[in-house]
Amino acid sequence: MAVIASLECARCHHHVSAETPQTLCPLCAGSLYVRYDMDKLRQTAKREDIAARAAASPTSLGMWRYCSVLPDVTPVTLGEGWTPMLHSKRYPGLYIKEEGANPTGTFKARGLGLAVTMARHYGLQHLAVPSAGNAAGALAAYAAAAGIKAHIFMPQDVPFANYVEGIVYGANVTMVDGLISDCARMVAENIKAQREANTPTSEVWFDISTLKEPFRVEGKKTMGYELVEQLGWQYPDAVFYPTGGGVGLIGMWKAFEEMEQLGWVTGKRPKMYALQASGCAPVAKAFEEGKPASEFFQNAATFAAGLRVPKPYGDAIILDIVRQSGGKALAFSDEEILASILDYAKHEGIFLSPEGATATAAYDALIATGDLKPTDKVVLFNTGAGLKYTDMTAEAMHLKRPGTLPKSMPVGGIITPQ
Amino acid sequence: MAVIASLECARCHHHVSAETPQTLCPLCAGSLYVRYDMDKLRQTAKREDIAARAAASPTSLGMWRYCSVLPDVTPVTLGEGWTPMLHSKRYPGLYIKEEGANPTGTFKARGLGLAVTMARHYGLQHLAVPSAGNAAGALAAYAAAAGIKAHIFMPQDVPFANYVEGIVYGANVTMVDGLISDCARMVAENIKAQREANTPTSEVWFDISTLKEPFRVEGKKTMGYELVEQLGWQYPDAVFYPTGGGVGLIGMWKAFEEMEQLGWVTGKRPKMYALQASGCAPVAKAFEEGKPASEFFQNAATFAAGLRVPKPYGDAIILDIVRQSGGKALAFSDEEILASILDYAKHEGIFLSPEGATATAAYDALIATGDLKPTDKVVLFNTGAGLKYTDMTAEAMHLKRPGTLPKSMPVGGIITPQ
Repeated sequence: MAVIASLECARCHHHVSAETPQTLCPLCAGSLYVRYDMDKLRQTAKREDIAARAAASPTSLGMWRYCSVLPDVTPVTLGEGWTPMLHSKRYPGLYIKEEGANPTGTFKARGLGLAVTMARHYGLQHLAVPSAGNAAGALAAYAAAAGIKAHIFMPQDVPFANYVEGIVYGANVTMVDGLISDCARMVAENIKAQREANTPTSEVWFDISTLKEPFRVEGKKTMGYELVEQLGWQYPDAVFYPTGGGVGLIGMWKAFEEMEQLGWVTGKRPKMYALQASGCAPVAKAFEEGKPASEFFQNAATFAAGLRVPKPYGDAIILDIVRQSGGKALAFSDEEILASILDYAKHEGIFLSPEGATATAAYDALIATGDLKPTDKVVLFNTGAGLKYTDMTAEAMHLKRPGTLPKSMPVGGIITPQ
Repeated sequence: MAVIASLECARCHHHVSAETPQTLCPLCAGSLYVRYDMDKLRQTAKREDIAARAAASPTSLGMWRYCSVLPDVTPVTLGEGWTPMLHSKRYPGLYIKEEGANPTGTFKARGLGLAVTMARHYGLQHLAVPSAGNAAGALAAYAAAAGIKAHIFMPQDVPFANYVEGIVYGANVTMVDGLISDCARMVAENIKAQREANTPTSEVWFDISTLKEPFRVEGKKTMGYELVEQLGWQYPDAVFYPTGGGVGLIGMWKAFEEMEQLGWVTGKRPKMYALQASGCAPVAKAFEEGKPASEFFQNAATFAAGLRVPKPYGDAIILDIVRQSGGKALAFSDEEILASILDYAKHEGIFLSPEGATATAAYDALIATGDLKPTDKVVLFNTGAGLKYTDMTAEAMHLKRPGTLPKSMPVGGIITPQ
């Protein structure tokens, strides 16, 4: 495992120590990245050791197969990572990274698995998070596994599954009549109030928000390592990524940089496509307008609940990566997203989350225009299990619970019960 | 991969050919098991090749890591198998096999993945299944991936997720005002009617019911291989298994027999515990009464929807295995199941399905009585993701959708939104 050398600000490159828990850069409030001694890592971290280590372990190591490039602490694990890379049945170059196989059914397990691991390492006892839904569920699960108290704030109209998992895992759940931005404000206000009231340090919440602490990115970077390893240590031509907070995209870019420094991969980095829903598309709008950062997206509304992030904290980093890579930030309507869910379910056997279906909608659109060829090697992230969005997808399809239909009525088909 | 020698009846040991699709034993209607030439397999199938093969493959092979003991055909795969084996945070001997990480969120993916693989191999074009819910969802997904039409029959009151996935994957869905036993009758009646109407052979449905064709057991047996490999090629002291149709338990027992013949494992086989819900406990009742088979369980009712199987086709085989192994068949009430869901969520970070929680309820009960020690090595199956049962678990908890609560009301906790 890797010893952390320091935490570096993504914006002003100021370094701080990782000996104690850190949030944002103390100088400029930029996001902090975990930095290792890469000269030392080049000696100790070998890519051929990864598969050998996994083979020597009777159980799946999950994302901890990359322990040589992760902090040297005892993991809090629920089996996250090393998810299937499914080859499309229709497009020879398309690979779907099925993040729905993670604990709590989404890619959020990677970031929060690592962030909670570090929180336990630091001895933190209260973690708080504003969330569009899935980060809250993942925090609740990992906090329960670690014996830490979770305080989660979600919009009132998240998928029902997000609410239920929060309650079941024993988190302190607050449903907010607003968006993730309102939730973030409330977390900040609560922490401020606790400090002003001289609450004992051990009882003050630690804010584990997207990009406001260094370790969620560090967990998410394993998606970058994984996709490269799963393609035989080669880059694809493009990565299609549903982008709400964008931590995964930022984490993958960090992984690519590290892997190049370690000599694990060479060649041209993939074009990074950040995909959003038209009902909340701050990054796509800024990309279209050639701006370096996004503006707060008014009246955010889409059934791709995880993309209802009106102003991502890492917007400037995301836009920079997308542009540097030669990719694009695009948005698709809820109708296009739903059509893509049904298309991939019926023809690939994969039930996408609405977020994942922004990426397939984008893929199909770019294939149709000829911007992309079916043979171009593309890794497309389904960030969550479609099953976690049963209520919202059914609502978008105008599907009713069959219990409300007359008895013995045929549903969706041809056959009449005898 | 292994060449199938023949299919053998579990009851009368009659052999039939696997050259064409088979259902039940033509002599006695017993279930058919896949048999290989074990002398040949002893030469070709080596356990040390498994991890090496997995390590040499850039992507996860899932259950096909055991291809040397599976039929020699091209897999229809969605990434099933090689699920996490989670070490309990509280009991040193307890390992939870997290089958919720499978495609479609349950262990059914293994059996139907293999059965659909064989169906495609045979050129079958219509597959029908009666299901308590999850087998229907898995068939729908794998049939979609294979380009085969699925006809699924489920009780009207299955978890909503089962209904939605059937529709989304494009299956022909019939919701039945009854139980899986009614669904089974309807599938049989439809096939009979098709035959009587001289429907072209390619359009007659093939009945892919539990234990009425040989390959669902064959897929499920990978759970047995996996648990032994994940314990370092050793048997645990006991296996705790939620039992509806019981295919997984039967499949694991077959795996143990094969592994012993191959010299992959030695020693005493685990005690097999078959766990049911008190509201539908035909196997536990027959076990208690010392009977060789179960009776139809009247008025089956439990929120562990997958256990609503009033008369499993393989009941005699299940009871025989449980007794041979020195295990037990036990049943727990819905209240005990719900309490165990909440306990394991809050203290282990694992959101169990109601079926899985019959196994944890049993584990805790046997620990409490001293029948089991916390150091006894136990592998306990969570057969499905708790997230797939959001509606039923919430109903059991009397949880309402937060959208129906007043605005800005604190939910489940302490914090009042500002």
